[in-house]
Amino acid sequence: MFYQLNLRLLRMLCFLALFVVFLVPGRVSSQNTDQEATWIWYPGDYEIWLSNKMQARRTEREAVLPPLWRYYSPYALVTFQKELELPEPDEVTLYTEGRFMLLIDDVLVHGRPKKFTVPAGKHKIVLRVYNQETLPAIYVDGTYLNSDNTWLTTHEDKQWIDENGIPHQSGTPWIPAGMWNFDAPDNKPSEFRLPTEPMGAKKTEAVGSGHLVDFGKETFGYVKLHGVKGKGKIALYYGESREEALDSLRCETLDHLSFDQAEASDYTVGQSKAFRYVQVQSDASVAYDSISMLYEYLPVEYRGQFRCSDDLLNEIWDVSAYTLHLNTREFFLDGIKRDRWVWSGDAHQSYLMNYYLFFDSPSVRRTLLALRGKDPVTAHINTIMDYSLYWFVGIYDYYLYTGDESFIQDFYPRMKSLMEYCLGRRNEDGFLEPLAGDWVFIDWADGLTKTGEISFEQMLLARSLEAMALSAEIAGDTEGRERYRSLADKTKEKLFDVFWSDTKNVMMHQRLDGKVVDDITRYANMFGIFFDYFDGEQKQSVKQNVLLNDNILKITTPYMRFYELEALCALGEQEFVLDEIRDYWGGMLDLGATSFWEKYDPTEQGKEHLAMYGRPYGKSLCHAWGASPVYLFGKYYLGVKPISPGYGDYIIEPNLGGLKWMEGKVPTPNGEISLRCTEREIHVKSDEGRGKLIIKSRTTPKTNKGTIKKLDVNAYQIDLEAGINYQISYKAVK
Amino acid sequence: MFYQLNLRLLRMLCFLALFVVFLVPGRVSSQNTDQEATWIWYPGDYEIWLSNKMQARRTEREAVLPPLWRYYSPYALVTFQKELELPEPDEVTLYTEGRFMLLIDDVLVHGRPKKFTVPAGKHKIVLRVYNQETLPAIYVDGTYLNSDNTWLTTHEDKQWIDENGIPHQSGTPWIPAGMWNFDAPDNKPSEFRLPTEPMGAKKTEAVGSGHLVDFGKETFGYVKLHGVKGKGKIALYYGESREEALDSLRCETLDHLSFDQAEASDYTVGQSKAFRYVQVQSDASVAYDSISMLYEYLPVEYRGQFRCSDDLLNEIWDVSAYTLHLNTREFFLDGIKRDRWVWSGDAHQSYLMNYYLFFDSPSVRRTLLALRGKDPVTAHINTIMDYSLYWFVGIYDYYLYTGDESFIQDFYPRMKSLMEYCLGRRNEDGFLEPLAGDWVFIDWADGLTKTGEISFEQMLLARSLEAMALSAEIAGDTEGRERYRSLADKTKEKLFDVFWSDTKNVMMHQRLDGKVVDDITRYANMFGIFFDYFDGEQKQSVKQNVLLNDNILKITTPYMRFYELEALCALGEQEFVLDEIRDYWGGMLDLGATSFWEKYDPTEQGKEHLAMYGRPYGKSLCHAWGASPVYLFGKYYLGVKPISPGYGDYIIEPNLGGLKWMEGKVPTPNGEISLRCTEREIHVKSDEGRGKLIIKSRTTPKTNKGTIKKLDVNAYQIDLEAGINYQISYKAVK
Repeated sequence: MFYQLNLRLLRMLCFLALFVVFLVPGRVSSQNTDQEATWIWYPGDYEIWLSNKMQARRTEREAVLPPLWRYYSPYALVTFQKELELPEPDEVTLYTEGRFMLLIDDVLVHGRPKKFTVPAGKHKIVLRVYNQETLPAIYVDGTYLNSDNTWLTTHEDKQWIDENGIPHQSGTPWIPAGMWNFDAPDNKPSEFRLPTEPMGAKKTEAVGSGHLVDFGKETFGYVKLHGVKGKGKIALYYGESREEALDSLRCETLDHLSFDQAEASDYTVGQSKAFRYVQVQSDASVAYDSISMLYEYLPVEYRGQFRCSDDLLNEIWDVSAYTLHLNTREFFLDGIKRDRWVWSGDAHQSYLMNYYLFFDSPSVRRTLLALRGKDPVTAHINTIMDYSLYWFVGIYDYYLYTGDESFIQDFYPRMKSLMEYCLGRRNEDGFLEPLAGDWVFIDWADGLTKTGEISFEQMLLARSLEAMALSAEIAGDTEGRERYRSLADKTKEKLFDVFWSDTKNVMMHQRLDGKVVDDITRYANMFGIFFDYFDGEQKQSVKQNVLLNDNILKITTPYMRFYELEALCALGEQEFVLDEIRDYWGGMLDLGATSFWEKYDPTEQGKEHLAMYGRPYGKSLCHAWGASPVYLFGKYYLGVKPISPGYGDYIIEPNLGGLKWMEGKVPTPNGEISLRCTEREIHVKSDEGRGKLIIKSRTTPKTNKGTIKKLDVNAYQIDLEAGINYQISYKAVK
Repeated sequence: MFYQLNLRLLRMLCFLALFVVFLVPGRVSSQNTDQEATWIWYPGDYEIWLSNKMQARRTEREAVLPPLWRYYSPYALVTFQKELELPEPDEVTLYTEGRFMLLIDDVLVHGRPKKFTVPAGKHKIVLRVYNQETLPAIYVDGTYLNSDNTWLTTHEDKQWIDENGIPHQSGTPWIPAGMWNFDAPDNKPSEFRLPTEPMGAKKTEAVGSGHLVDFGKETFGYVKLHGVKGKGKIALYYGESREEALDSLRCETLDHLSFDQAEASDYTVGQSKAFRYVQVQSDASVAYDSISMLYEYLPVEYRGQFRCSDDLLNEIWDVSAYTLHLNTREFFLDGIKRDRWVWSGDAHQSYLMNYYLFFDSPSVRRTLLALRGKDPVTAHINTIMDYSLYWFVGIYDYYLYTGDESFIQDFYPRMKSLMEYCLGRRNEDGFLEPLAGDWVFIDWADGLTKTGEISFEQMLLARSLEAMALSAEIAGDTEGRERYRSLADKTKEKLFDVFWSDTKNVMMHQRLDGKVVDDITRYANMFGIFFDYFDGEQKQSVKQNVLLNDNILKITTPYMRFYELEALCALGEQEFVLDEIRDYWGGMLDLGATSFWEKYDPTEQGKEHLAMYGRPYGKSLCHAWGASPVYLFGKYYLGVKPISPGYGDYIIEPNLGGLKWMEGKVPTPNGEISLRCTEREIHVKSDEGRGKLIIKSRTTPKTNKGTIKKLDVNAYQIDLEAGINYQISYKAVK
């Protein structure tokens, strides 16, 4: 097993550019496989069901705004099957969501038993469950027989009984069951709600005959009115900003409530919302004592940490972490006021940030599954071409950070059908250009052209094809691996043939009607850097002629700032990037931000900062893509990143970027890597994996453990083993 | 329009063998298009939703038995759109099943209005509705703006708003809305139930300490217990036969009820069942006054009628009609005790019978849509190869009888994807042979081989391809028409090349490993006759060597009896067939049948008649396919059949088959054809279409209207116009 994997991975090396894979720690399960029972379902279906529900909760001034893309549905009829050998009879208790049929060894059990006994020996247990209202799920609780992801599921049972009562079955597409953390019988998947905690208001002031309640910072949850009494109406106007909450005619979200109660009682609104401020206006005939809220959140641990000698950066990290947490819910959201939808491009950044903060893999898997839906594929994810492609890149990253092969094995068919959809939309030159129904997003930027062949889209396609080749390998699809590898190579070659300008030494933006347009943008140029598609010379040219060139169309969203700053960090410009972060994210803090925004343009004034989409408060002031410092600090300052799946191997290249000191933690699948770094000392410890600490030092470093290897002038390496506290003295290169 | 259609149909003549089409009466809508509001939904989704629910109602001794095949789901998110020009402002009332978003001229309407006003002029109204529990549906009620099938629907809205608030939409797959008869706001699709009527028991006798209640005939519905009082259990054992109801340990369906009520009250069981007898056993501590039932039925009119000089045949017709009615419910069922599922092969016969009894086109459409589901196609309909193919033939027939082009236009994409699935499963010779997951059914018959290449399956494939070519034409897919026509021709050619034996002059049954097996069965031979695939000489050979040859494996199900007798009728063997009907269906009546059975073998004795599938009461005693006399009498004795879509043209070839007289009615889309026929006189009248009455007479007939044309020796034709009472005197050829 080990040998085989190793060989396979060596073959991968031939065609994977960036993430050089040396070793893989065996199959890492995406899910718990112990003997405890948990609710199980058809894999991916719960994610589809829950995301459908969640995304339809978006409202705009009480109008419901479900997504513009298609919803898939869970299968209403699912068969669950488990074969096992029992050393003794097993008393089993059965819970289902849905009406069920139970077969033991192909024999129908009459009635609808809540308990049943399976005799000792080898047996096959089958449950066929119908549930059209929510989704079929089972919880089977015995000593030996327990529902978990070792059960197989299918939506096409195909077991038929002939004229003589003999069962036949063939061609049934079995797939391991899906699960999350519903580990008790009464913890039903269909009744899932995020937990809440009561939070009080920070300040309340009179506004007309009502009040403006300030919760002190951006938050999310359910407003609660205490001691409501009387008959009449109460209106709640929500605001991420004070201005929005006070503008009852134009604020984005509101609630109109009606009461008729002689006795005072508390009332919690039915739908959660994003806000910092709430303006409350009530009829004179109805009174209330006070306003509080129930803060609703996904319980995740802040496993990643970062502190440094610059308090502004510490505050930026804190607000970034909070911004990401607010947007990490049932799924990774784009923003909590709106859209409250799951967008693949936005989520892709959340995945990356998550690896440096929560390392919550179930959230990544849930989001990837919700985005993908099922077959047939009839449109790009979110209808956006780039967003289909980010989905593949997201799986690539997920595998690298977590080492979870089973996720790819289970869902490879869905990867394949989405990729075939993408490939089917290429033009004669093998390039993607928008067809009817395709939205090319790239970024919000004035004057950005998005028609014809865009180099950025082709670069994402090439990367996606690489992800497919890797996944095909993991899923055992040898033919697919060869095909995708070859397509990746061809796409990349063609990309450079057409878009790389030998005169300007940069990647051009667009080709229209067969002619490359004289237009350079940052997008493909910055992705080419951290995709490692450029050679050293190309990188330097891109850096000078694009990234550091103010004449190139500027980026005004934290969304693309993420990648721009990542590219600069990958080029070693940590100090420059810190200044950018201080300016850009610090700029938002200066304006009173308690979470980071969808878009920030330093040249705007006052209420301009709140407007977007032609609406005065259209802008989201808590957008996941605003949280990127969490990622940058972990990956490019603490400098920790995996180089083989699941941190089997990793690298640490600390870079102070001009700071006096920094310290922090980066989570790994089963532990963490902790680091403290000054200009003279580095302390590092990891719980798992084989690390390489790369240090730039003006002198030869000294270490309490391990060996110092010289790599280059002022560059040294120390190989790290798990569980050891390394203390290294050195002199940082400034 | 007319000219164009005519031309198109002339082209069709070139490749359609049997149903020669002369003229088509314009586009016949599958649905009501008047200005009244009705509930609408995404087309086909209600049928999927309702059939999922209905088919999961099957129980076997209280165990739930949902189908063995995959369930599709309705779309949980649907956009409805209507563009119209209003002469004045319209006050509109809105009802939805699901949370909705309303846009007027691309502008979001805030709140969740129950009423809104659309100004005079040209407008676009959009409703995006989310409903995951049942299915999204709307009822829009204005003076001008009313929900009906002129609205368009989509499951992929794709309307997105750019940074500046400008809406964009492209690539949205619009399709006309689906509807049925939910014509009032409070008549919600999700609350649909078939109507019921109270029915009393015919006889009650003591059985042990309980009772056996006899309802006098096979029936379907909800048992009602009157005046239940006390605390304890009551068990109901259902039986289609007395034996079954009395056998509490082995009857197929039962109910265990628990009561605890001091005051006497009535109780109706929750789930409907099929039965004639119910055995009731109660604890001594609980009492009831009496037992009745609520008969549940689809309200349809018996538009077809048949009476003749043989009372046995009249009874057979009556019991057939009742059998068909019991099985015509939300959908055409196979049987009402079990499976209570929708099977394509069974339904195909129900469609045909329906055209001669109810002519209820919505039931045909509902059933076709429920069977087909949506994409992707991953298995044959019901997992049975022949059942996918019957589905196409059913559409072919539906178009011929109803002339409904819009149904084909709307659902042609689903026809295409199913056909592509079938074509993708052919072997190198272009033949279908079972792959993993394919069940080849053909018929229940001992010793019938179903492996390898079966001639019968290839014949159905050829016919299905003809149906596809016709449908492609109607749907405007010129390329598809050519492709399917060519594939139909090739399949038919290859079928005869391989399976027609020039020495035996019949169609052989099977080819295994490239060798035709020395085995002849009735299936392909009888279908070849009424598909008109054989020439005159071939037909006669098949008749003598197969159909009338007792050495060929006999047919023991009314299912294949249907086609066997049809083939014999098509060969003019009406008198022989009447004797067969008297024997076979009369045989069931002799055994006390009040509805016709799933299988009848005259050689069986006593309780053997009740057993099947290895279970003592496994056989269904009310199976739709038992009702075929309804079809045969209408089509081959009254002799009425359409020869262009929707009875634009039809033929009447009365055949007494040895009877003294017969009379009856055959429904047409907008009327009926009534006929009375003795050996000397024929009275005929039709409400629509152009008819040809073909009479076999020993003398030249005389008519009160129209002209007698001589066709051949003793064969005459009179062209019929609508609305005229024709009275013809002749001398029947005996």
